Amino acid sequence: MQLKSQVEWALHCCSILAGLPPEGYLATRALAELHGVPKEYLSKALQALSNAGLITGTLGPSGGYRLARPTSDITFLDVVEAVEGSASTFVCTGIRDNNPCATRADIDDCDRGPCAIARVMWQADKAWRDSLRSVRLSDLRDSLERDIPADLWRRTGEWVLARA
Amino acid sequence: MQLKSQVEWALHCCSILAGLPPEGYLATRALAELHGVPKEYLSKALQALSNAGLITGTLGPSGGYRLARPTSDITFLDVVEAVEGSASTFVCTGIRDNNPCATRADIDDCDRGPCAIARVMWQADKAWRDSLRSVRLSDLRDSLERDIPADLWRRTGEWVLARA
Repeated sequence: MQLKSQVEWALHCCSILAGLPPEGYLATRALAELHGVPKEYLSKALQALSNAGLITGTLGPSGGYRLARPTSDITFLDVVEAVEGSASTFVCTGIRDNNPCATRADIDDCDRGPCAIARVMWQADKAWRDSLRSVRLSDLRDSLERDIPADLWRRTGEWVLARA
Repeated sequence: MQLKSQVEWALHCCSILAGLPPEGYLATRALAELHGVPKEYLSKALQALSNAGLITGTLGPSGGYRLARPTSDITFLDVVEAVEGSASTFVCTGIRDNNPCATRADIDDCDRGPCAIARVMWQADKAWRDSLRSVRLSDLRDSLERDIPADLWRRTGEWVLARA
């Protein structure tokens, strides 16, 4: 089970958009060039972020995207769910109902909760989402600023500003 | 991002094999009938469990499968990874190296750890696996015995024993 590559791209794009000056926009073309990914595919990831209300775009020659919310108000989970959706990684298809020993009354039992297997799987899905929800884009910017050599961080910032 | 249906089937099959008498085996056909799933597809899930050393099979007319380890020694994670593999749900393709501002020295920097984005994604993957690792097949059997009406639990047990 693997996340789409677009999740990786979307997270990197958000981390770059987080560094734009207020009211600055960055074009899909620039984001694609900076990350070395195909513009056409990246467009879909950006569209997903836009549909989720995480980024906002303008059209025209100087058009592009910027974050729609403060970096402290966007979590990793927001970005992952924008691309992958929020449906659980585990789908219970209710195969216990196929048990030839189960009567109609067993299956229709109103008190019957979700299957014990589904409960465990959903709990693990929740643990994954909770972990993603605990890290905000503002935390990521702090990590990147610590990790990336100061000179590269500065040059990248200048490259972005020249295109924003 | 969704797990294969085979994960659901494999977990249900393990929960049933956990109720077999010592040295009893249950045929793929019986497991398929009990869960109402296609025998041919279920065979692949069982083969994956066998390859992972979780169940063991015998051939012949009375052939089938049984657990290869005690129920307290098989976790949800074991079953999920038998079917889905143990590779992380997030693959870092290293797109930060495509940054046109990065020099060869930046990219080759020996001190450079994994990307901050990958670290967060891998931590969430670990939270998911830790949650799955925390529940054993023996815990599941206890939950099922509490959840399932006593009469249905007994009839299902008899159905299985008659075919083991």
